[in-house]
Amino acid sequence: MRPSQRAADELRPVTIERNVARYAEGSCLIKFGSTHVLCTASLEDKPPAWLRGQGRGWVTAEYAMLPRATHTRTRRESTTGKQSGRTQEIQRLIGRSLRAVTNLQALGERQITLDCDVLQADGGTRTASITGAWVALHDCLKWMHGRSIIKEFPLRDHVAAISCGVSNGEAVLDLDYAEDSAAETDANFVLTGAGSLVEVQATAEAAVFTETQLNSMLTLARGGVSKLIELQKCAVA
Amino acid sequence: MRPSQRAADELRPVTIERNVARYAEGSCLIKFGSTHVLCTASLEDKPPAWLRGQGRGWVTAEYAMLPRATHTRTRRESTTGKQSGRTQEIQRLIGRSLRAVTNLQALGERQITLDCDVLQADGGTRTASITGAWVALHDCLKWMHGRSIIKEFPLRDHVAAISCGVSNGEAVLDLDYAEDSAAETDANFVLTGAGSLVEVQATAEAAVFTETQLNSMLTLARGGVSKLIELQKCAVA
Amino acid sequence: MRPSQRAADELRPVTIERNVARYAEGSCLIKFGSTHVLCTASLEDKPPAWLRGQGRGWVTAEYAMLPRATHTRTRRESTTGKQSGRTQEIQRLIGRSLRAVTNLQALGERQITLDCDVLQADGGTRTASITGAWVALHDCLKWMHGRSIIKEFPLRDHVAAISCGVSNGEAVLDLDYAEDSAAETDANFVLTGAGSLVEVQATAEAAVFTETQLNSMLTLARGGVSKLIELQKCAVA
Amino acid sequence: MRPSQRAADELRPVTIERNVARYAEGSCLIKFGSTHVLCTASLEDKPPAWLRGQGRGWVTAEYAMLPRATHTRTRRESTTGKQSGRTQEIQRLIGRSLRAVTNLQALGERQITLDCDVLQADGGTRTASITGAWVALHDCLKWMHGRSIIKEFPLRDHVAAISCGVSNGEAVLDLDYAEDSAAETDANFVLTGAGSLVEVQATAEAAVFTETQLNSMLTLARGGVSKLIELQKCAVA
Amino acid sequence: MRPSQRAADELRPVTIERNVARYAEGSCLIKFGSTHVLCTASLEDKPPAWLRGQGRGWVTAEYAMLPRATHTRTRRESTTGKQSGRTQEIQRLIGRSLRAVTNLQALGERQITLDCDVLQADGGTRTASITGAWVALHDCLKWMHGRSIIKEFPLRDHVAAISCGVSNGEAVLDLDYAEDSAAETDANFVLTGAGSLVEVQATAEAAVFTETQLNSMLTLARGGVSKLIELQKCAVA
Amino acid sequence: MRPSQRAADELRPVTIERNVARYAEGSCLIKFGSTHVLCTASLEDKPPAWLRGQGRGWVTAEYAMLPRATHTRTRRESTTGKQSGRTQEIQRLIGRSLRAVTNLQALGERQITLDCDVLQADGGTRTASITGAWVALHDCLKWMHGRSIIKEFPLRDHVAAISCGVSNGEAVLDLDYAEDSAAETDANFVLTGAGSLVEVQATAEAAVFTETQLNSMLTLARGGVSKLIELQKCAVA
Repeated sequence: MRPSQRAADELRPVTIERNVARYAEGSCLIKFGSTHVLCTASLEDKPPAWLRGQGRGWVTAEYAMLPRATHTRTRRESTTGKQSGRTQEIQRLIGRSLRAVTNLQALGERQITLDCDVLQADGGTRTASITGAWVALHDCLKWMHGRSIIKEFPLRDHVAAISCGVSNGEAVLDLDYAEDSAAETDANFVLTGAGSLVEVQATAEAAVFTETQLNSMLTLARGGVSKLIELQKCAVA
Repeated sequence: MRPSQRAADELRPVTIERNVARYAEGSCLIKFGSTHVLCTASLEDKPPAWLRGQGRGWVTAEYAMLPRATHTRTRRESTTGKQSGRTQEIQRLIGRSLRAVTNLQALGERQITLDCDVLQADGGTRTASITGAWVALHDCLKWMHGRSIIKEFPLRDHVAAISCGVSNGEAVLDLDYAEDSAAETDANFVLTGAGSLVEVQATAEAAVFTETQLNSMLTLARGGVSKLIELQKCAVA
Repeated sequence: MRPSQRAADELRPVTIERNVARYAEGSCLIKFGSTHVLCTASLEDKPPAWLRGQGRGWVTAEYAMLPRATHTRTRRESTTGKQSGRTQEIQRLIGRSLRAVTNLQALGERQITLDCDVLQADGGTRTASITGAWVALHDCLKWMHGRSIIKEFPLRDHVAAISCGVSNGEAVLDLDYAEDSAAETDANFVLTGAGSLVEVQATAEAAVFTETQLNSMLTLARGGVSKLIELQKCAVA
Repeated sequence: MRPSQRAADELRPVTIERNVARYAEGSCLIKFGSTHVLCTASLEDKPPAWLRGQGRGWVTAEYAMLPRATHTRTRRESTTGKQSGRTQEIQRLIGRSLRAVTNLQALGERQITLDCDVLQADGGTRTASITGAWVALHDCLKWMHGRSIIKEFPLRDHVAAISCGVSNGEAVLDLDYAEDSAAETDANFVLTGAGSLVEVQATAEAAVFTETQLNSMLTLARGGVSKLIELQKCAVA
Repeated sequence: MRPSQRAADELRPVTIERNVARYAEGSCLIKFGSTHVLCTASLEDKPPAWLRGQGRGWVTAEYAMLPRATHTRTRRESTTGKQSGRTQEIQRLIGRSLRAVTNLQALGERQITLDCDVLQADGGTRTASITGAWVALHDCLKWMHGRSIIKEFPLRDHVAAISCGVSNGEAVLDLDYAEDSAAETDANFVLTGAGSLVEVQATAEAAVFTETQLNSMLTLARGGVSKLIELQKCAVA
Repeated sequence: MRPSQRAADELRPVTIERNVARYAEGSCLIKFGSTHVLCTASLEDKPPAWLRGQGRGWVTAEYAMLPRATHTRTRRESTTGKQSGRTQEIQRLIGRSLRAVTNLQALGERQITLDCDVLQADGGTRTASITGAWVALHDCLKWMHGRSIIKEFPLRDHVAAISCGVSNGEAVLDLDYAEDSAAETDANFVLTGAGSLVEVQATAEAAVFTETQLNSMLTLARGGVSKLIELQKCAVA
């Protein structure tokens, strides 16, 4: 039995609340159980410097945790003077995931920044961020489309993400912090609405893993992402 | 008439929601109209290095805004590599204000950090932060007292803060962003429950000001802080 | 009786020596007793980047202390890698104070930087800096006017500053370091030649303060600033 | 046909030269074609601060590229003032991979740092680094064992890594820079001598990928890693 | 004829004023013509961390220029976030020069920091700094000796420094900024009272130089340093 | 007898291997005994910002050591966040030395960066760097000349460098780390093929030195540099 009494293939309660930030072009507050992430999309009228003059836009992401999102207070990155390696890994992953379903030509010479700020952290913050950031991006693009800033709608598909792990030798879905800390293997899967893979990251923590376990986790992830994409569809309907 | 249709001595709607952060020893979400600040109190079992061995504790604060709390996106301080002068001024002010009503001897050799993270900014973020941080601090101290970590309750009084300004020649209370941007003078007042002054900061923006205007603002601030302290009392009752 | 044997409304001996820096467009060495600040004004032919193309100029300030200006050596900010919060607060205050009496349109698209470097610190360094920086700014503008760089003289009025405090329950003027360290309340007042207020900053240190004490300090500050402005007039005559 | 004329499952020529650094406790120069990485192992007599007193050691890694390892010169990270997100991702991966096959208890309260410095970069620098770092770590542990610093030999197994990709729809092994730049999907696999998985990272670059493609890449990786581990065995024999 | 109308072997007017900093254990203001450097010595009761427990002390130096010491304003190093290469070279040179004549055993486990702050710069700031820092160090050691903090006086000899150059093919002494900017070769010599060499730094600027020119400069430097040491003797008499 | 059994005027075995970096426009691996430095020359099509529009180019250098080039591991400068004072001194010296023999007009508005990365350090890394960087620069300029990027060949002469020291009272050439650590005086000499001096740096370490010793070291350096320039000639022949 899992610590949270959930079945191996059972997500935590997931909710998506849209339009939570007054000034952002798109936003949502996404909750995976006690993990709460505020996602905002900010439109800028020019692309990053290295992309100017190429007729394309860019989608990027930044990720951070509030100092007391966690069990014990984490030092603020503005006082350490730099973003940690973990922060940079996560925000690069969020950006890649969203770009995989965005037509950057259709976006034109603009940039959209997805800010994913973790208000409360109980495991799975990066997968909640990707799933919520898609909603914020969607709403930002709708906002642009409604104002005729873009002609063609640049989103090609949904994208969502979920964590899996091997816990006591069994593959399980959507680990909370307690389960994640004790898991042998930790994995994150990013998939599209069409079921294609965007990113697979599987890491041996306490023990190495087998191809069978990788495939079991992937199967669980497919099921979980399907449900998340249903929730995205309801949210933006 | 003020842009917000409020009377000169009228606060925006203020709400305080406690216990919003699962892991913090004390927390609240305070709203002054569209200004929303998440305040958490984090207890650490040792004082800062420079205070060790003196039998006293410390109360400090950190302040930040989410990148899209504002009309246009603000760059994240973790990517600029340092906190701005404005951020440092504000967090020093919050810390001083709370220490003015805290018995640091009674706290013992411990540190409490108040994190004030602005989720949405429409003027008055520093005064909302002070007012909300008092609630988070109060709840943290209650938490400690309930566990017999401290014997004597270290809070001597309430403390709350409000902004005033001179707008079109008239003193007004609790400016929102639109009014603040156009005001001739900008001031912040921090007062205790007993009506004593903790901090006065008045700055000529578009025009210098008179002693009469300073006193008019102080009178408005007294009224505003009285109401804020009533709200604090209701919140922690 | 005050530690310095001065009356409550008595300034320390104040002197202003002009033209102390060979290369600067304006400069002075100002002394408030044992507090010595070297103020220079440097003209730059273009405004800061964010102000370009608006037909206006800018006046800004930087503040620093030599490492051994103080009783014990202070670490150099170039080796800590950043300016402290205190330094940033002070230099922002100096800049605001001078801009309050400067016609930035008349200055044209240029920037003047006031560098206030404390050679020796015995309390009141920020108020000495403001008072001296006005002289350096005046001389820089005269230099520009003499060379027909500007047509209209941009200074509208004098500006000067003085500290006050509540010490043993009594309001006193121009605190030195020994008195400042022990004072209950610490305040800084910036006023113009016409007697208008530019900035009021009052902070409870050891004890909160009353409106009466605030007004007593303001009365002392008016008297002190009048004398400082007389000294500025003599200096630039 | 691949740009390099290799078969889909064909590695570039791989060589491992040991004892290339006079002062290091273990070292090798590993070449995957034109990708050359110098790996050194440095023993330190105490673990990192956060691990003290727990009776265990630590294995960590740092990764860097010489400025002109690449086609055009890359700015040195010591002059930008920080390590890039990419650098941090890679060195965290190298460290995790080696720890997965190391008995940290048997290492005792010590730290071994694997420095992987890329002298020349033609794709696959992170997988060459992992494969070479294992050799340097092995030799460092042998050095320690030979001096009776440790009783039990802490290495449990080999570990090696290889990149795969989907190029023109086909899974291919060990991409060089030209092929990697044009590939639709990019993946890195870290496996042990026993064939267990340590890390899987697969990323959609130009196009999303399928589960079938993921499995094809994994099959190629197994073959490649087998050969690399044979080379490690020859090198340390 | 030199731009300053001086003979090839003629120093600028040099003055040394002691006891210019109220709080420092030793201090002087040294002027080489229009080059003015404020030198202070600060005693700290413990040596740097890397020297603890060895029974010896340390003498170190820091160097900086005020922003408007120069013809055009130089950016403050606290705002660039680091000391320039030039600053570090100079302060390392000052420290080495003073340590060459100090008995670090006799100093005991303490550190003396010489701060050399250039108030005005007209060439030769590093040589003025060394020459003045010796006086500040001397006075600090006298202060310690007078209080019986040390038994043996740790200064073994005088040390002073002067710049030379090759200008229009001729060796000249003590270049000011105008002459230095146009010189073919620039050199700095540090010598003791006994005439021994402590440091020689000669650099081809506009043209390479010959051994004869090096020796001519050294001869000039000997003469110049003799006079500087006479001035040091007068100053501390 | 010297620790290395060499005569006072005897170089360590020196070798220069060209074309060691696949992508650089010029490169060599230079060895002075166990000191190994990889030198690359990188051409950039524009000069540094401060030189634009003046019709001239620039030659600059960067220097670094791999972490385990040394007996004990040195912390990587990218993790400390800045280059040390020593690093900056050395790279400034390398750049000045090469510019002394380069016609920057003939180079045109371009920049060549010489990267000197020390793979293994046994004393004399800066002199090996200068000597090797000349070869890399030569080859880069030949590469440019061969492609008609430049018409006139900009190198005016050879330049090479060697260290000397006073060891047990005797002047010796080309010190290795063991000898350098114990020497009384440490010196570096940079000379041209024509025998002119480019840079002389002599520093008292354990003891001051005499003019006679300076001249003895210079004589040794002349002999050593002659041999190094012969080796440069062979290398590029």
